[in-house]
Amino acid sequence: MKPSIPKGTRDFLPEEVVKRKYMFSVIESVFKKFGYQPIETPAMENLQTLAGKYGEEGDRLLFKVLNNGDFLKKADADALAKMDSSKLVSSIAKRGLRYDLTVPFARFVVMHRNALQLPFKRFQIQPVWRADRPQKGRYQEFYQCDVDVVGSKSLIYEAECVQIYDEVFDKLKLPVIIRINHRKILEGIAEVCGIADAVSAMTISVDKWDKVGRSGVASEMEKRGISAENAESVLTLIEEDDFLALAKALRSSDTGTQGIHDIEEVIKYVSGSGTKNEFRFDATLARGLDYYTGCIFEVESPDYASGSIGGGGRYDDLTGIFGMPDIPGVGVSFGAARIFDALEQLNLFPENLQFSPRILILPMDSESMEFAFGSLSKIRQAGIAADMYPEPVKLQKQFKYANALGVPFVAVIGENERVHEVFALKNMDSGKQDTVNIDQLIEVLQMAK
Amino acid sequence: MKPSIPKGTRDFLPEEVVKRKYMFSVIESVFKKFGYQPIETPAMENLQTLAGKYGEEGDRLLFKVLNNGDFLKKADADALAKMDSSKLVSSIAKRGLRYDLTVPFARFVVMHRNALQLPFKRFQIQPVWRADRPQKGRYQEFYQCDVDVVGSKSLIYEAECVQIYDEVFDKLKLPVIIRINHRKILEGIAEVCGIADAVSAMTISVDKWDKVGRSGVASEMEKRGISAENAESVLTLIEEDDFLALAKALRSSDTGTQGIHDIEEVIKYVSGSGTKNEFRFDATLARGLDYYTGCIFEVESPDYASGSIGGGGRYDDLTGIFGMPDIPGVGVSFGAARIFDALEQLNLFPENLQFSPRILILPMDSESMEFAFGSLSKIRQAGIAADMYPEPVKLQKQFKYANALGVPFVAVIGENERVHEVFALKNMDSGKQDTVNIDQLIEVLQMAK
Repeated sequence: MKPSIPKGTRDFLPEEVVKRKYMFSVIESVFKKFGYQPIETPAMENLQTLAGKYGEEGDRLLFKVLNNGDFLKKADADALAKMDSSKLVSSIAKRGLRYDLTVPFARFVVMHRNALQLPFKRFQIQPVWRADRPQKGRYQEFYQCDVDVVGSKSLIYEAECVQIYDEVFDKLKLPVIIRINHRKILEGIAEVCGIADAVSAMTISVDKWDKVGRSGVASEMEKRGISAENAESVLTLIEEDDFLALAKALRSSDTGTQGIHDIEEVIKYVSGSGTKNEFRFDATLARGLDYYTGCIFEVESPDYASGSIGGGGRYDDLTGIFGMPDIPGVGVSFGAARIFDALEQLNLFPENLQFSPRILILPMDSESMEFAFGSLSKIRQAGIAADMYPEPVKLQKQFKYANALGVPFVAVIGENERVHEVFALKNMDSGKQDTVNIDQLIEVLQMAK
Repeated sequence: MKPSIPKGTRDFLPEEVVKRKYMFSVIESVFKKFGYQPIETPAMENLQTLAGKYGEEGDRLLFKVLNNGDFLKKADADALAKMDSSKLVSSIAKRGLRYDLTVPFARFVVMHRNALQLPFKRFQIQPVWRADRPQKGRYQEFYQCDVDVVGSKSLIYEAECVQIYDEVFDKLKLPVIIRINHRKILEGIAEVCGIADAVSAMTISVDKWDKVGRSGVASEMEKRGISAENAESVLTLIEEDDFLALAKALRSSDTGTQGIHDIEEVIKYVSGSGTKNEFRFDATLARGLDYYTGCIFEVESPDYASGSIGGGGRYDDLTGIFGMPDIPGVGVSFGAARIFDALEQLNLFPENLQFSPRILILPMDSESMEFAFGSLSKIRQAGIAADMYPEPVKLQKQFKYANALGVPFVAVIGENERVHEVFALKNMDSGKQDTVNIDQLIEVLQMAK
């Protein structure tokens, strides 16, 4: 039997694991500094929790877990008779795999509300699963990385979202542009352009701006029943470079003016300490038809042309679906897979992400094994990652292994070394060789750290 | 709709996540020092990879993932007609959730053999899923924590397993007893007692020693067709306290003598640098009917009477099932859930596992919000985890939040503080209050770290 793994899933070799851990630890350190706390939720949720939360396509893409035991016993007889797969599912599968971190978080907040102090600030870094058709850069199992605060409408949290993006990408050395817009500004634009009832159609169209450009958005709007004239007024406002001019144009819309006011407030908070990356208002930002109701965010890197590497926004009512209304919140998400690819492509991972030992001891004969292992233990007791070749085979083979591991030092032990309790220490970079005792050896390794 | 999570799964609140991360980071730091490298495998494996690897019970306890789309189209018509759930499974579910980390590791080694240098030393800390009946301390989703080396028969790796256990539990401050035995010693005992053909029956019986004691093991053996007389000779040898006497008794068995020799070698390696925890040979250790073929290990804590918190051993042929024979290996596993419970029960988690910010800023009026947020940003820029109450509500409510978060300091900002750009800083432990400027505030926080 030739083994394989499911399409769309991946194994991670040590180098990838170490790089990903570095990326997550940078993100996590910033989250913590901003007062966010980690939570984890189970991979399996009740299908009832997940179903209907991600639209029709989402329901199709949910992975369902078959009930254990004699699952056919309780199967929907009618669905079976009609061979109706989608109708049968709920009677033979009561669990599904987590599809994102947002719905499980909403469920978490409702279930643990008595243990949580509002505002509750949490972050969560865990894999999710989607039965999407696998393709380059798109997997069926991938990590999400979310930070949210629930239980407050304060705009300082919007400012925090901007600062978190700014600091994370500054630390990762990946330059980004952080864009902000406001759902109420989009609504206000629709209002003053006389298409208040078509705000969804407008938003869906505007959301395609990055892909299809101005004229594309115009024809999208027309396709959705917005007149060419109205579409043109929408586009003129959306493209308005002067924020004050936009504010003035929206003055007749209370909703639009509220959006303008919020954005001003967030910009005021953020500009107090400034950002290292570009941060700007952009009325062309729409973020699809998500549950957002206030500020919305999106991040991309000018150095990496593969679309957004993060996004988020404010929502008024995330937990309402689970019977706990009026809990507002705001949060942003980091696109872990794309950020990883960007760091890889731009060579931004630090060089010293060590995952190999600092030294490999090479025993030349079986009599040297005990001295070699004893020395190895001493080096490790000094807190240094160290290893030895496990058998006294040909030195050439041992050196080949040392090279493959990428260890910076090797220490050869033959009869002479063993008798005098010393090591032939070789620096694998410089080729320099020295005879040293155990204390000197440990010192060299500690200096070279 | 009242939300819930599947039976046997758990949410983890911040405090639990932080504690678990501490535990894993201690374990991981030791693994790395011993030259082991991290890998990760997908949660979903092909059912073909998992099925038949864990015995009949294991097959029952595997979680199967329903094929997406119109899965009934390819369903086994015969199984459907007979309403035979277990026969139907393979035609409607081609994936399953990881049941342990060992089988995926074997698959990984075979699939990536060209990218790996043997001996390959890996560790893996990931959740696994089992449809076991949930009960106290037993979950359907739980972490495993495995360390293995494949591609060498050298006994230095057995010594490493002992040292890894010793150092991890020393660092966790949980005293343990590490026991070692050898499958070939058990075989040798069976041979010299004249029941070479009943070695499995003997091993299964001996495995129950910890639960049923000497007389229980005796009746287990008799139940399995071993005569009372033979059982008694087995028990006498297994209880032999004097290792040299046991060696002598096994002298007529080549297999047994090989086992004795291996154990001697491992003890020699380990005793070179000693252990901080008790390490001893124990012929009553059997470890069920697993795939082990050489040394076997088990760890328990005398302070925590809930059975083994770790175990492992040497296997001759892990990857043979995937078409790559003769790759020997040895490894041990840490029972993460039980170790967590032990640390919790014995109060061994460090007190300073910080997951709350160091300071909470409390704004007394809306005019102070901007100064508060600007100060907050400065404190964070100094690398200190900090937060503020997001609205200028009653101070009592803000203090309540500060207490709930467990922050060591709060800084109150009212009109006076805002005008003079200072803070009323309060140490929440001592109750001491001071008026400080931003530099002094940061200094106090840095000193108190």
